[in-house]
Amino acid sequence: MATEAGSPLVGIIMGSKSDLSAMEPCMAQLDEFCVPYELVIASAHRAPEKVHAWAGSAAGRGIRVIIAAAGKAAHLGGVVAAFTPLPVVGVPMRTSDLGGMDSLLSMVQMPSGVPVACVAIDGAKNAAIYATQILGAALPEYREKIVSMKRDMANA
Amino acid sequence: MATEAGSPLVGIIMGSKSDLSAMEPCMAQLDEFCVPYELVIASAHRAPEKVHAWAGSAAGRGIRVIIAAAGKAAHLGGVVAAFTPLPVVGVPMRTSDLGGMDSLLSMVQMPSGVPVACVAIDGAKNAAIYATQILGAALPEYREKIVSMKRDMANA
Amino acid sequence: MATEAGSPLVGIIMGSKSDLSAMEPCMAQLDEFCVPYELVIASAHRAPEKVHAWAGSAAGRGIRVIIAAAGKAAHLGGVVAAFTPLPVVGVPMRTSDLGGMDSLLSMVQMPSGVPVACVAIDGAKNAAIYATQILGAALPEYREKIVSMKRDMANA
Amino acid sequence: MATEAGSPLVGIIMGSKSDLSAMEPCMAQLDEFCVPYELVIASAHRAPEKVHAWAGSAAGRGIRVIIAAAGKAAHLGGVVAAFTPLPVVGVPMRTSDLGGMDSLLSMVQMPSGVPVACVAIDGAKNAAIYATQILGAALPEYREKIVSMKRDMANA
Amino acid sequence: MATEAGSPLVGIIMGSKSDLSAMEPCMAQLDEFCVPYELVIASAHRAPEKVHAWAGSAAGRGIRVIIAAAGKAAHLGGVVAAFTPLPVVGVPMRTSDLGGMDSLLSMVQMPSGVPVACVAIDGAKNAAIYATQILGAALPEYREKIVSMKRDMANA
Amino acid sequence: MATEAGSPLVGIIMGSKSDLSAMEPCMAQLDEFCVPYELVIASAHRAPEKVHAWAGSAAGRGIRVIIAAAGKAAHLGGVVAAFTPLPVVGVPMRTSDLGGMDSLLSMVQMPSGVPVACVAIDGAKNAAIYATQILGAALPEYREKIVSMKRDMANA
Amino acid sequence: MATEAGSPLVGIIMGSKSDLSAMEPCMAQLDEFCVPYELVIASAHRAPEKVHAWAGSAAGRGIRVIIAAAGKAAHLGGVVAAFTPLPVVGVPMRTSDLGGMDSLLSMVQMPSGVPVACVAIDGAKNAAIYATQILGAALPEYREKIVSMKRDMANA
Amino acid sequence: MATEAGSPLVGIIMGSKSDLSAMEPCMAQLDEFCVPYELVIASAHRAPEKVHAWAGSAAGRGIRVIIAAAGKAAHLGGVVAAFTPLPVVGVPMRTSDLGGMDSLLSMVQMPSGVPVACVAIDGAKNAAIYATQILGAALPEYREKIVSMKRDMANA
Repeated sequence: MATEAGSPLVGIIMGSKSDLSAMEPCMAQLDEFCVPYELVIASAHRAPEKVHAWAGSAAGRGIRVIIAAAGKAAHLGGVVAAFTPLPVVGVPMRTSDLGGMDSLLSMVQMPSGVPVACVAIDGAKNAAIYATQILGAALPEYREKIVSMKRDMANA
Repeated sequence: MATEAGSPLVGIIMGSKSDLSAMEPCMAQLDEFCVPYELVIASAHRAPEKVHAWAGSAAGRGIRVIIAAAGKAAHLGGVVAAFTPLPVVGVPMRTSDLGGMDSLLSMVQMPSGVPVACVAIDGAKNAAIYATQILGAALPEYREKIVSMKRDMANA
Repeated sequence: MATEAGSPLVGIIMGSKSDLSAMEPCMAQLDEFCVPYELVIASAHRAPEKVHAWAGSAAGRGIRVIIAAAGKAAHLGGVVAAFTPLPVVGVPMRTSDLGGMDSLLSMVQMPSGVPVACVAIDGAKNAAIYATQILGAALPEYREKIVSMKRDMANA
Repeated sequence: MATEAGSPLVGIIMGSKSDLSAMEPCMAQLDEFCVPYELVIASAHRAPEKVHAWAGSAAGRGIRVIIAAAGKAAHLGGVVAAFTPLPVVGVPMRTSDLGGMDSLLSMVQMPSGVPVACVAIDGAKNAAIYATQILGAALPEYREKIVSMKRDMANA
Repeated sequence: MATEAGSPLVGIIMGSKSDLSAMEPCMAQLDEFCVPYELVIASAHRAPEKVHAWAGSAAGRGIRVIIAAAGKAAHLGGVVAAFTPLPVVGVPMRTSDLGGMDSLLSMVQMPSGVPVACVAIDGAKNAAIYATQILGAALPEYREKIVSMKRDMANA
Repeated sequence: MATEAGSPLVGIIMGSKSDLSAMEPCMAQLDEFCVPYELVIASAHRAPEKVHAWAGSAAGRGIRVIIAAAGKAAHLGGVVAAFTPLPVVGVPMRTSDLGGMDSLLSMVQMPSGVPVACVAIDGAKNAAIYATQILGAALPEYREKIVSMKRDMANA
Repeated sequence: MATEAGSPLVGIIMGSKSDLSAMEPCMAQLDEFCVPYELVIASAHRAPEKVHAWAGSAAGRGIRVIIAAAGKAAHLGGVVAAFTPLPVVGVPMRTSDLGGMDSLLSMVQMPSGVPVACVAIDGAKNAAIYATQILGAALPEYREKIVSMKRDMANA
Repeated sequence: MATEAGSPLVGIIMGSKSDLSAMEPCMAQLDEFCVPYELVIASAHRAPEKVHAWAGSAAGRGIRVIIAAAGKAAHLGGVVAAFTPLPVVGVPMRTSDLGGMDSLLSMVQMPSGVPVACVAIDGAKNAAIYATQILGAALPEYREKIVSMKRDMANA
């Protein structure tokens, strides 16, 4: 599982271009942690083959963790998880009618065998932190980033 | 769109063998209406390729409408709908913790472009009736079955 | 069940003029699919006889599927379904107090024998797509429209 | 608005025979108050004409208030209210999946012009008391029953 | 139970001056029906003695039905109902955090013996119609108003 | 604010005899802390005068804190709080239909000026602990009980 | 438990600077009651040691009651309660997605042994009143403030 | 980050002995994957120092990921996350009153900076799979276990 320098360690996928602005704190946090990532926008329902191809090849391309953001009947996390052995971090998007309760339940209540672990509704920044914590299980420099961020927060 | 006599017009898919007993009124009602159907049990998350293959080939095999039953983060309906031009009737399964509110929102709140139309939580029998109503748009004998059932209900 | 050229195949009913703007994507999508439809605004509670007359005669006039949009205690779908053998697609309208949860439950939780199949809260466009999928069970040119729309979405 | 001695003052309607046991405290309380009532079981969806005929003729037969009990997408109260100028007291039935939240919202969230006033989920006894309070607006002996019941409760 | 001409038949109570604007459609509808009413603003919690005195004397002053509007932990309806044999119509006020679900449950879920019958969240106009329907049980001219309003709605 | 030895410091009120078994852990915990209490069962709606008299006289009798337990439209805490300057600890009772969400919102969402502070649904034991913490603000021996209980819990 | 004149009797803690404006009515009310308080902003998750040190030393510094305000997964109240024998009043902050239902449940549903008693969502002013009621258990001048405020409210 | 053979890679913490049976599928799955783990039962509220000590030392002892299970106001995940740079997988426990909605929101809605990623209510087995997926980011043999489990599921 050696990784080429600079090649993406995190794959971010979101179901719609309209999720981009809510997800910006995710990319900003990864940038701050110097975590290389790739970003794709593809709907699990409108472009399923694209999602499958991307998810199915992620591990092979050196990606270690996937962040999936979607709203409403937010299947994206589960669909990705079905095609990869990598851990998938779900970000349920806030919705204008039900506040994101629909997105949250659609992501978090995954059936046995194929987990998606969710952060808070619109928890874009926390998804980045969590992905970095996962990288930290393998790569000490990322754990160090977390340790140092926590120290900064405590002193803030 | 001619259909071989006796070849299935309705495809029923459910995410888990544990959904079978809740779905029995669906099959019983289709039997009563003499609607030929096929039944498959396959999880959208644990056996995605199987689901895709089945959904992708359904229209070609003469199936006119699909009934998808699943619980919790019930993606099955949406995943099937992504692979078929056929109308998909979703049956959200009741769950022991949230009563099926999770299944309902995961099925009904589909994003733009790929609808799943849901009946009630555990609405197995109604899914069969609705599928038959859809068949009735093409095949007068099925509309007649509905008309007659409605007459019987009114007189009951 | 022959249909006169240009005569409506879809009947759209909504409970109040205030639902019109939320339902506009429905009519736009049907126009795009060249599906002929008729549109009526009538409340199940304020003008029940009008609703019954319209629903009761829809099938006879060649309509194949009905789209019913209503909010709050959204009985319109169920009331229409009681008077027609046609499949009814419910569109629960978003509400300002409960976000549309009231509309959704009032539409989707139909009792045994008289289903209404619901799309998402404010799912106007998806209702049009779903109605077209139902037409596609009978009329190959409509299924072709769906197939082609799905191809476009995948390539978008 | 004279009423023949012993002719029903309250009309009770419920959507299904399965609601009878939950509604028994309603009939028992009316009996205790010596309020004459009639009882009909008819589904707004399965037997709409029967419901309309019954509701439409209730006022003319001397009935002063209607109690409507139904569960899930509980349209019965609203459907009855559409056909009568009488006040309709709704009793949302407890449901096994959503606890009766669906019944409650389907009954209470009536749109402008056609109110149904709801008592609690499974509030059968309170519906009887409330109907008697309404009768008390016209007939002093029924108000006296309420006054006396309240005195007894305070002393219990 | 004779009533002096022009003396109030409906008593409206609301918990806070801030409820006045949401309740204006109630007063407007009563005015349209020429129903004489009185209006008091008093909190069940901040001014309980005032509420008790008002509720306890309402029946004696010729009032036939009470409309109580309140928000959040909306006890006003129940507190009034505890002190009067008159029917109490509850109007749960919409709230900025929970949309009025708190007001609704606090009003509608009354325990056995002391019902409050609720209309929809912010259902001010319907409360007026319902109160008039209750008056109609005793006074034919008010039932006639309802009959005529329903005719107008059907023709609208 | 001297208190006669053994005279009650905590007043417990519950709306119905049926709440007694759920509240037993409250009394057991107060016994364990040697906190003298009095217990009354009285419904805010069925026996309002009794509740007012009890609540209005509690402070004068040396009671320092009140525990109020009620279910459904649980007004008891608010009604008591309206008649006493003492802090009221609300215990929302679990309900069979909505799980206690109705009780919780009816208790906790008190309007400005008259707080009720709630513990968890069916949080009988915690109500006793909290009442003792309040006593501890005045009487060091009760704070000592809490300190010691916390020490025991940490070592358990 | 003597308290130095002017030394804080109430400790207010909030999880984030963004809670300050929602909490201002709390400080204003304490000022009006002349209750000395101290205020600290510290997150239970980002600065746990700071929270523990503050909570653990509060009782020793003469504080008698703690007000904890937090939003979303609002652990602050529970974390503080774990480190102090003082009563903790929780103020669940309104949230933009779920309206504060998340904050409320995270605060109020505390497990056995460590209660937090909650006021309403965004109930900042009521938290101040409640804290003063608790002080009133020990210090008659504060009970007098409550008595006088209640008198003013009744006359308003 | 070398790990002694057999020393625990996963730390499991639960808030109460009563959570043990619901969590058994977690331990069973880790056993099946031959993932060494340690298990501790400690309440964030009743035994905070123990929780802090355990969480604070976990990374140093070679643990790579923590699974935290708790119910109701389920702070355990957040409290642990505050003391460790490791990723924390939350398992919200089903509750008898609110079905686990309280546990879920208390765990998943973590504020910015300190994520807990949640699996489904009572998702014990999925927590084990997810923890193993995280280990797989560092240790190829664990990713292999996941790949093989997915293959088995697809063939089942």
